[in-house]
Amino acid sequence: MTDIVAMGEMMIRLMPPGNLRFEQASNFDVFYGGDESIVATSLARLGMNAYYVSALPDNVFGDIAIRKLWEQGVKTDYILREPGRIGLNFYENGASVRPSQVIYDRVDSVISKTTPGKFNFDTIFKGRDWFHTSGITPALSDGMYEVTKEALKKAKEYGLTTSVDLNYRRKLWPPEKAKKCMTSLMEHVDVLIGNEEDAEIMLGYSPGKTDVTTGMIDEEGYRDIFIKMTKDFRFKIIASTLRESRSASDNGWSVLVYDGENFHRSKTYDIHLVDRGGGGASFSAGLIYGLCKGMEIGETAEYAAGFSALKQTVVGDFNLITDQEVRNMIMGDVSGRVKR
Amino acid sequence: MTDIVAMGEMMIRLMPPGNLRFEQASNFDVFYGGDESIVATSLARLGMNAYYVSALPDNVFGDIAIRKLWEQGVKTDYILREPGRIGLNFYENGASVRPSQVIYDRVDSVISKTTPGKFNFDTIFKGRDWFHTSGITPALSDGMYEVTKEALKKAKEYGLTTSVDLNYRRKLWPPEKAKKCMTSLMEHVDVLIGNEEDAEIMLGYSPGKTDVTTGMIDEEGYRDIFIKMTKDFRFKIIASTLRESRSASDNGWSVLVYDGENFHRSKTYDIHLVDRGGGGASFSAGLIYGLCKGMEIGETAEYAAGFSALKQTVVGDFNLITDQEVRNMIMGDVSGRVKR
Amino acid sequence: MTDIVAMGEMMIRLMPPGNLRFEQASNFDVFYGGDESIVATSLARLGMNAYYVSALPDNVFGDIAIRKLWEQGVKTDYILREPGRIGLNFYENGASVRPSQVIYDRVDSVISKTTPGKFNFDTIFKGRDWFHTSGITPALSDGMYEVTKEALKKAKEYGLTTSVDLNYRRKLWPPEKAKKCMTSLMEHVDVLIGNEEDAEIMLGYSPGKTDVTTGMIDEEGYRDIFIKMTKDFRFKIIASTLRESRSASDNGWSVLVYDGENFHRSKTYDIHLVDRGGGGASFSAGLIYGLCKGMEIGETAEYAAGFSALKQTVVGDFNLITDQEVRNMIMGDVSGRVKR
Amino acid sequence: MTDIVAMGEMMIRLMPPGNLRFEQASNFDVFYGGDESIVATSLARLGMNAYYVSALPDNVFGDIAIRKLWEQGVKTDYILREPGRIGLNFYENGASVRPSQVIYDRVDSVISKTTPGKFNFDTIFKGRDWFHTSGITPALSDGMYEVTKEALKKAKEYGLTTSVDLNYRRKLWPPEKAKKCMTSLMEHVDVLIGNEEDAEIMLGYSPGKTDVTTGMIDEEGYRDIFIKMTKDFRFKIIASTLRESRSASDNGWSVLVYDGENFHRSKTYDIHLVDRGGGGASFSAGLIYGLCKGMEIGETAEYAAGFSALKQTVVGDFNLITDQEVRNMIMGDVSGRVKR
Amino acid sequence: MTDIVAMGEMMIRLMPPGNLRFEQASNFDVFYGGDESIVATSLARLGMNAYYVSALPDNVFGDIAIRKLWEQGVKTDYILREPGRIGLNFYENGASVRPSQVIYDRVDSVISKTTPGKFNFDTIFKGRDWFHTSGITPALSDGMYEVTKEALKKAKEYGLTTSVDLNYRRKLWPPEKAKKCMTSLMEHVDVLIGNEEDAEIMLGYSPGKTDVTTGMIDEEGYRDIFIKMTKDFRFKIIASTLRESRSASDNGWSVLVYDGENFHRSKTYDIHLVDRGGGGASFSAGLIYGLCKGMEIGETAEYAAGFSALKQTVVGDFNLITDQEVRNMIMGDVSGRVKR
Amino acid sequence: MTDIVAMGEMMIRLMPPGNLRFEQASNFDVFYGGDESIVATSLARLGMNAYYVSALPDNVFGDIAIRKLWEQGVKTDYILREPGRIGLNFYENGASVRPSQVIYDRVDSVISKTTPGKFNFDTIFKGRDWFHTSGITPALSDGMYEVTKEALKKAKEYGLTTSVDLNYRRKLWPPEKAKKCMTSLMEHVDVLIGNEEDAEIMLGYSPGKTDVTTGMIDEEGYRDIFIKMTKDFRFKIIASTLRESRSASDNGWSVLVYDGENFHRSKTYDIHLVDRGGGGASFSAGLIYGLCKGMEIGETAEYAAGFSALKQTVVGDFNLITDQEVRNMIMGDVSGRVKR
Repeated sequence: MTDIVAMGEMMIRLMPPGNLRFEQASNFDVFYGGDESIVATSLARLGMNAYYVSALPDNVFGDIAIRKLWEQGVKTDYILREPGRIGLNFYENGASVRPSQVIYDRVDSVISKTTPGKFNFDTIFKGRDWFHTSGITPALSDGMYEVTKEALKKAKEYGLTTSVDLNYRRKLWPPEKAKKCMTSLMEHVDVLIGNEEDAEIMLGYSPGKTDVTTGMIDEEGYRDIFIKMTKDFRFKIIASTLRESRSASDNGWSVLVYDGENFHRSKTYDIHLVDRGGGGASFSAGLIYGLCKGMEIGETAEYAAGFSALKQTVVGDFNLITDQEVRNMIMGDVSGRVKR
Repeated sequence: MTDIVAMGEMMIRLMPPGNLRFEQASNFDVFYGGDESIVATSLARLGMNAYYVSALPDNVFGDIAIRKLWEQGVKTDYILREPGRIGLNFYENGASVRPSQVIYDRVDSVISKTTPGKFNFDTIFKGRDWFHTSGITPALSDGMYEVTKEALKKAKEYGLTTSVDLNYRRKLWPPEKAKKCMTSLMEHVDVLIGNEEDAEIMLGYSPGKTDVTTGMIDEEGYRDIFIKMTKDFRFKIIASTLRESRSASDNGWSVLVYDGENFHRSKTYDIHLVDRGGGGASFSAGLIYGLCKGMEIGETAEYAAGFSALKQTVVGDFNLITDQEVRNMIMGDVSGRVKR
Repeated sequence: MTDIVAMGEMMIRLMPPGNLRFEQASNFDVFYGGDESIVATSLARLGMNAYYVSALPDNVFGDIAIRKLWEQGVKTDYILREPGRIGLNFYENGASVRPSQVIYDRVDSVISKTTPGKFNFDTIFKGRDWFHTSGITPALSDGMYEVTKEALKKAKEYGLTTSVDLNYRRKLWPPEKAKKCMTSLMEHVDVLIGNEEDAEIMLGYSPGKTDVTTGMIDEEGYRDIFIKMTKDFRFKIIASTLRESRSASDNGWSVLVYDGENFHRSKTYDIHLVDRGGGGASFSAGLIYGLCKGMEIGETAEYAAGFSALKQTVVGDFNLITDQEVRNMIMGDVSGRVKR
Repeated sequence: MTDIVAMGEMMIRLMPPGNLRFEQASNFDVFYGGDESIVATSLARLGMNAYYVSALPDNVFGDIAIRKLWEQGVKTDYILREPGRIGLNFYENGASVRPSQVIYDRVDSVISKTTPGKFNFDTIFKGRDWFHTSGITPALSDGMYEVTKEALKKAKEYGLTTSVDLNYRRKLWPPEKAKKCMTSLMEHVDVLIGNEEDAEIMLGYSPGKTDVTTGMIDEEGYRDIFIKMTKDFRFKIIASTLRESRSASDNGWSVLVYDGENFHRSKTYDIHLVDRGGGGASFSAGLIYGLCKGMEIGETAEYAAGFSALKQTVVGDFNLITDQEVRNMIMGDVSGRVKR
Repeated sequence: MTDIVAMGEMMIRLMPPGNLRFEQASNFDVFYGGDESIVATSLARLGMNAYYVSALPDNVFGDIAIRKLWEQGVKTDYILREPGRIGLNFYENGASVRPSQVIYDRVDSVISKTTPGKFNFDTIFKGRDWFHTSGITPALSDGMYEVTKEALKKAKEYGLTTSVDLNYRRKLWPPEKAKKCMTSLMEHVDVLIGNEEDAEIMLGYSPGKTDVTTGMIDEEGYRDIFIKMTKDFRFKIIASTLRESRSASDNGWSVLVYDGENFHRSKTYDIHLVDRGGGGASFSAGLIYGLCKGMEIGETAEYAAGFSALKQTVVGDFNLITDQEVRNMIMGDVSGRVKR
Repeated sequence: MTDIVAMGEMMIRLMPPGNLRFEQASNFDVFYGGDESIVATSLARLGMNAYYVSALPDNVFGDIAIRKLWEQGVKTDYILREPGRIGLNFYENGASVRPSQVIYDRVDSVISKTTPGKFNFDTIFKGRDWFHTSGITPALSDGMYEVTKEALKKAKEYGLTTSVDLNYRRKLWPPEKAKKCMTSLMEHVDVLIGNEEDAEIMLGYSPGKTDVTTGMIDEEGYRDIFIKMTKDFRFKIIASTLRESRSASDNGWSVLVYDGENFHRSKTYDIHLVDRGGGGASFSAGLIYGLCKGMEIGETAEYAAGFSALKQTVVGDFNLITDQEVRNMIMGDVSGRVKR
């Protein structure tokens, strides 16, 4: 069993049911999640020993967040409890030609006020194998940027493999600040993960003729920048999801993984989206899982692509897909026939 | 700011939730709406000064209808309150190959009993800029046919621009009566609006090889009849939505606008329908908005097409789409990516 | 009016709402159904005199099941009531690339404990015209295999036409046992019905290059085996649905019917699935209806295809589609336009 | 088995869920019911042969109403189907100090347009035992007043026992008209049923110091008028529910029955109301049931009191209580302990 | 018509449905409200000209809050729109022996960052008649304390009558600070409103043997302190609700009003609570309404008591009770009989 | 920290929402629970180290049951997973005078097929402090009776305190068998727990004039039999809940605890029931908690009474009440005031 540590913010997502707009909803569906918690819960569900590092308020919502992690089998020993508030996001599901929209209300959440020294990374990392976080975490506050750097450094000291999902969030920081901060962290990163627009915004590498507003993906462009980035930052693995956004309801989904020698572009899945949230985090989880399990790079890419494609048919943040379901799908059964 | 007056019937729509049939539903979703009230609320939301003229019962449902208009910013000063009933329609959402169906229960509603002289059009129209109604209004009763004629004439006397959406309703009147009545009103109309089958049924102009049961649209045919109709009735603007009904779930949607000189056919949107109701009324609203704002004819057509396409991703009668969302879409972003 | 008798198990289906997974659902939608009860209710709704033969527990769930049949106009005179349990199935709706799954919990249901002699088939069949059951019924238990054989024999003695829908259920019996049992019943069958994989598993006839996991259908292969099967078993009619499983959300749907002389392949419908359950049973019902009403073979095939395609846009087991809706569709109106 | 015929209007009740006000509800719960249909379904459920006579529109709502009766085991052979509308009522549940309110929308329903001669009462009454209707039926229209008189006369000709529940509805007719019409019908009535205020309004007999706005009941007053009414109209049985309206949520409930010789006042139940609708009709049903089954007058009163008290713990119009449940309660078990 | 101005914070209330605990809820009901907005909407509904002064974020939640006020007829001309967040509160409904609980998440809401000078009180108050706020408003922040003082002073300068509902909120400020701040505002207050514990905490006047944890109310104690407070602060009117908290589901409710000469204690209502929120604010509204309408002090007290008692049978913040409903109740009809 | 082990069956409860009857429900609420799992989760939530011993099917419902235990902090290391089914119960909520009813469908559940030797009690009990089970567990099957005896014996060998909640279930075994089996287990029991009717049915001790159908409780009678039972079986503690069943909605609730020397009768709470399920199990948990924490007998009784009273205001099986909430209530605050 592999021990993996993920660090990030856990939030409550409040979402009008179905296709209702914010102003129509007389109630909001409630989900607990957040990027790195999706990685932790996914890996726990797949059988790994997953620890989640975060800070949560010492009120009922902090309690519930922890129970939701327990329910998924995640270990919560290192979560700080402080007075304050939990981060929120209000998420309105789009439909067809109408995009989804997110209103963040996460300023001054407990974790955003956390500063270096609050987490005992010596205890946390001792004997563990892998550390994962995303670009959302350092974006939370200057303090959390420092904590992220502290964590990545310590993780490398303790010999863990480190992975970072770039995950740019426009509403958390401007591109310039994101680029400066993220670039400074790259020296501590073994496995870099992004989506079809992250690398350009956060690290300044432009993937050719890709146009996210029309859903056009230029694979050649990604290959070029992966090679350059690997040279510049000496990543062991660099990987990206390639979402072809045809509408708010239908997407193409594939991934590209590069191990410094070979590229693997996975199958492309046509997904009728149930909940696109958590696709990227599920890809990170699938990638980590494949690499830890000793899968070959190609198999890893297909596994991670399938695991993250299937996530997008599940409502909520967490990826409730089983290993068996991933294997059925990557073995070719996408017919959706009833399993009787 | 432009002052616009819309007149018509406001109804309660009762709808089985989701894809349930009438006989399966243990509850009905409730919406307040009706064609011209959609135009009024849309224009109020877009920042215009919108008045709605109607008659409503002096009971709690009349009160609620008025509050729903207030919520959207519509002025209700000229709404009559009389003893009686509010019109109802029972709407069963179709799905895929199964069509939607409507059971009207609007006979003897308060407005259908209204007769000329009940509305003080001198007060209503003085200082206003635009008057809009639809072919549903004169179809309600002989009295309302007279009221509609009275309104259109008065509107022209007071110098308002007048627009009529033909909007044929088979269950309200037979084609012959509709044709006779509507033809008689055309002399008072500046802007004529229809959908892919109205012009033939209500005015007798057949748009070539268009076949609404297969969803086939013959643009050339529409161009021909627009030219003829403009000659015959001297419309300033003639416009139509062109719905390609592929199934109850998926439609193509575009519009054609003719200003007596040039045609503009908008982009065609592939819409996965959330609620097709209000598409036509939203097109009227978008068209009026563009013309009042001084947009060029082509820009107006694209705006109205986008505004009405987006409506069909929103549940309920009213069009809750913002100006910004329309602009994003007509600028080319149909990817449905999350706005974070 | 034709008298038709259907025999089988009635179950409660418990289903997470919408696209929720079992583990997410805080409530389950409840449906009463089961293959042959769908045939009986469909035929009663279409105006036939339909009897349903089954055994149900003598508790409130047995009472409700009977009321649900009454609601659809089915006669329940011959249903046994015994102490015990009603069969259950837990059904999780798939979405897009994620397949649906069924957890059966029907072991030791009242009907599965029924043995020959319990039903008075002399009374039941006297003066009736048609007997229908499916391959699920003999799969319930050894006792019910004997009861099915008893019923088929008696039905032939009383001069009824007999039909069997093969309907293989992997979780009820292994292929070898199914093949042996079903083959032994074929001599009493006039009309054989299957889906795209039943014939191979249950009778050993392989339809060419059909591949259900990719949704590929080889019509030629089906024609070949239909001819062979007709020779071997002297069926009067042999028919199959041909589902092209593109995803859990979207299927192609058509049927192939052979009367010993001619083949008729129906139109193929592209269905955005609301509930794929009951598609096969509705095809059986449509086929029986067409044959009893004296439709030609081609018309029968189209009717049955349309009736069963439309079913898949309706939630729940029972087919709530009207005769008029089928006729509209097979006459070519698949536009899904609102019936106003 | 006793054959009972009930005649009246069947309506759709539309009700905001829970304690919501009309203006808050984004959906309405849907129930099919109406006073005499409650009597018919109650008696069918208790094992009697119940026929329901009414007129319903020839649309989907008429179909559904009939299926709802089938579900309860009621025979619908004599229901007329005509073009037109079904009656509606909008019902807002009160709570505590806030009363419930009803908005009727039943004008011009199909049944209200029915006139004498439309129902073939010779066929309907031949061989039947009991005819029941209520004061709502003649209040629907002048035509239905005539139909009610025709029905009562014919019923007596065919030797049926007749019962009428006075059931005054202020919004259907004024007290004067009600009194005149109802008085004229009394000569054909064997069993008269009322509630705590009907007798005064509809027949002019004032029950002492009873004050319905404070919930005060004067039993002595009722005894006095029962004796007078029996003298004046020669009823065989006269009976009334005695509701002590403490609040919209909590009522006392008992009944008083007089057979011309003895009075029986039932136990008083303290009911926390789930749905007070159908209490009176359930009392009628319980009374008819007891009398037909040959129960003694006291037992009949207790049965009818218990059956109607239990109804008020069930949502919707129909009384879904079983004979066993009534017997448990009148035997003294009002503890509400779980039946495990 | 009287012009009334209310100032305060508008919040979103997020509430588990029914009796669910926070940790059980997979969705939260959504209400817009806040103390003074209840006063404003109540008075607008009762026919007064009501202005609401507040600050709201310039995002979709600010837009919706304003539409909700429009829906109730409130004028929103003076509401500031600023970047930032809207205040939230999470409200868990108690039941029986389990108390309700509130988690506030309103720190740094837009209004709490507002400072003196931001509202143009000269424009706001010119020509108005009454100004109302509550003790919640100065508790929001030091800035809002200053704004409240500014408002009260200006209101008096412009000759408005001023009213303040003490409304102590433990989670917003400690008793000492509350007492100091509130005392300093009292010189500008004409009408002082409180509940059964406010006066002691916020102004230091102890109402005898009242014990809120057992629901015991000592009317004599209140009379004593009302006399003292009137002497000390020269209030024109002093009034309090007297809630007898028997359980989370059932309360006694009455009010006590003193005009410097006479006391009036209203009837006590036994309320089965649907939503106790808004009871106090509704009392303020009823009191202002009665005083503005020129009712006598006793009639005012009864009106305000009835209006606020009825509110507690309505879900959500706003008081959706009509004038007619209040009058029916205070005239003695508390029977909860259906209004047919 | 104390280590406690509970053993029993975990079931899915399927329940019509609100007050709906089984036949009205189009969906069932889903809860996971069962008597001893309530004890285990309650104690884990209160901070104890709780292990749950059971057998669950190796399907998704077994997985979910385990996750639900994890969510509450229970350790599941000793749960067997076997092919088979999970036990079900269908629970219809009563209201007012209508009792709740339960339909069990738990025959042949995985645990009921478990036999001695399947659980490794040496491992399970080593180092633990307390073992708890209920009379439901030996009632499941002869095998489970043996397993229960095995467990109790082993627990005593390892020095654990043992407690048994008698918990008679009429539908699982007849009184004679229950009495014989339970009596045979008593020699291994330290702490005996019952409700107001268990002792009589299961052990033959009749508590005086108690009448559960009228809710009458004879405390003296309980005192007498507690003394006798303690003499006969040498229990260290004997305790009972005393439910006064006034109706299905309202109960009185108190407890009586005897430690061989003194009796403690707790306060009586008037509970408006939200969900009476789990009241008894919560009492067991509260009692175990108090005893383990070293509370005095009187304090223990009050704690257990409060903890179990509060449970009945929470929907579902598990007791989601916090230690703080219990302490507030037993300190006297039953006012249900909002905790702001």
